[in-house]
Amino acid sequence: MKVSELGEFGLIDLLAKMITEARGYQVPADLVLGIGDDAAAWRGDASVQLATVDTMVEGVHFAPETATWPEVGWKSLAINLSDIAAMGGEPRYALVALSLPPDTEVDAVAGLYEGMLALAGESRVAIVGGNVSRAPIITITITVLGASPTGAVLRRDAARPGDAIAVTGHTGSAAAGLKMLKDNLKLPQEAAAYLRNAFLRPRPRLAEGRRLVESGIRAAVDTSDGLLADLGHICKASRVGARLNAASLPVHPAVREHFGKQARDLALGGGEEYELLFTGPPELVARVKSEAGCPITVIGEVTDTPEKIEITDGQGRPVTPPEAGWTHF
Amino acid sequence: MKVSELGEFGLIDLLAKMITEARGYQVPADLVLGIGDDAAAWRGDASVQLATVDTMVEGVHFAPETATWPEVGWKSLAINLSDIAAMGGEPRYALVALSLPPDTEVDAVAGLYEGMLALAGESRVAIVGGNVSRAPIITITITVLGASPTGAVLRRDAARPGDAIAVTGHTGSAAAGLKMLKDNLKLPQEAAAYLRNAFLRPRPRLAEGRRLVESGIRAAVDTSDGLLADLGHICKASRVGARLNAASLPVHPAVREHFGKQARDLALGGGEEYELLFTGPPELVARVKSEAGCPITVIGEVTDTPEKIEITDGQGRPVTPPEAGWTHF
Repeated sequence: MKVSELGEFGLIDLLAKMITEARGYQVPADLVLGIGDDAAAWRGDASVQLATVDTMVEGVHFAPETATWPEVGWKSLAINLSDIAAMGGEPRYALVALSLPPDTEVDAVAGLYEGMLALAGESRVAIVGGNVSRAPIITITITVLGASPTGAVLRRDAARPGDAIAVTGHTGSAAAGLKMLKDNLKLPQEAAAYLRNAFLRPRPRLAEGRRLVESGIRAAVDTSDGLLADLGHICKASRVGARLNAASLPVHPAVREHFGKQARDLALGGGEEYELLFTGPPELVARVKSEAGCPITVIGEVTDTPEKIEITDGQGRPVTPPEAGWTHF
Repeated sequence: MKVSELGEFGLIDLLAKMITEARGYQVPADLVLGIGDDAAAWRGDASVQLATVDTMVEGVHFAPETATWPEVGWKSLAINLSDIAAMGGEPRYALVALSLPPDTEVDAVAGLYEGMLALAGESRVAIVGGNVSRAPIITITITVLGASPTGAVLRRDAARPGDAIAVTGHTGSAAAGLKMLKDNLKLPQEAAAYLRNAFLRPRPRLAEGRRLVESGIRAAVDTSDGLLADLGHICKASRVGARLNAASLPVHPAVREHFGKQARDLALGGGEEYELLFTGPPELVARVKSEAGCPITVIGEVTDTPEKIEITDGQGRPVTPPEAGWTHF
């Protein structure tokens, strides 16, 4: 069935039902009104509130040929949760604005929600509102509202010269996954599955972000624009520079093995990755690393030369940076 | 200059500058971080929080041939503020997600923001975040966050049999304005200006919504889907019916004069109108009406027959409802 046959209000009823029946869904204790009124409503509290919005556009951020609908739904929520993670916050509520061509299959929209709800359930986020609209292409815009109960947040402008620069997980895997899908590369099953998930089912670093802020880290960003570009955002906001050791970049074996010399450029320049890049005094970063629930790698240090980023290889030779990460225009 | 020449981050810098330099802009006292980090952040409070999102799609909700960019910007924020008005709340923060073709003129985006900021300034809403994304068509999705300091809200499910049904302002003017633009009707200057503004520069009923909730009114909706469709939403949520007197509909003289027999259908069925439709005990509605700062008209009463809406003309004869209001699919 197509959404034009089900109609706008039939579609909203279906999605509202999927939300309340999803595994892991609990009505938030503070919710006053969810889907179905002019606005969602909940009882507020005095913690610091966080809000972020992100869009996925058909043919720009995803293609139905290379991603399943649940993967698109998962990722469209994940990219927003990652912004909350990069603040050290916990996500609470989400609003989903969908633009759809009238001939979109209802099953596709249900699949989108299935993926979104799987991640919402495990992240304890309640979808409490949204909008559906007709459009010539599919666009998914999600707003996530969260909070930092302690009041402390991870900022882009808090890096200081002498800080160690560290990153969670692996870098370059999402970009390698995108390249594999676009170029239709045939890789061994295990590597292919890892890379596909890295690109299409990123798991936002929510627990890690909260642990960072609780440990006393104050400067972080997620690597959605690519490691170098996002390090540039920190340097610009903090008026500092950076020295990176490219040899220390945590490149996953699947990327190292199958992408050879491209691995470093993928790790430095590749976007759509949702790791946390953070800085802090070296002793603090060392302690955070030893107590972390995921790999954390020190990849460089903050310098006092505003916005200058120097990259060297294992032998101390300068490395030419790849083209800047993801940019929309 | 096109946005592809300015680049994503250049565009964001330009818009951030427009926001902080706009007339009427004040940094909200509770703001911790505005545009420029992974998420916006502000200090919360214990009032009831409100959140709503709405999308305007090029070619569906607006056409550059019939609306100026400031008009499109104004309206894209107005439709969201109207949802906050329909809850009886006050708007506080907005996030703006723009999807743009790379060859969009920077002046067009600046015009869009000019209109948005004019309304944001007079409504005391701060734009604190957003997203820009490449897309084949222009889409504007705005999320507005607000609050009800008293905790009371206007709901769709609070209408009771015996309630009077009332509406603010005039109905059918926006639909008549759309018809005038689409059919390129030549009307006298004053009527044309009124109808164009009714469609393209709706003024959300924020003050009226707050006054309603403070007066003790509990059931309301905005008329964005059209008067009959939105009355239907109230009836469905409240499990009641309604009796409407079509002769009492507050049709503006410009509509009555220039649209003749179509006026009633425009008033009943036309969407994209942002008046408040509300119900309450007749004595309370009479008091609200006498103290209101805008026209308020009683147009019918709530009955106990779930979801049945009866419409009669001035002589008590049944009226056939027009096609349902705006629906997306």
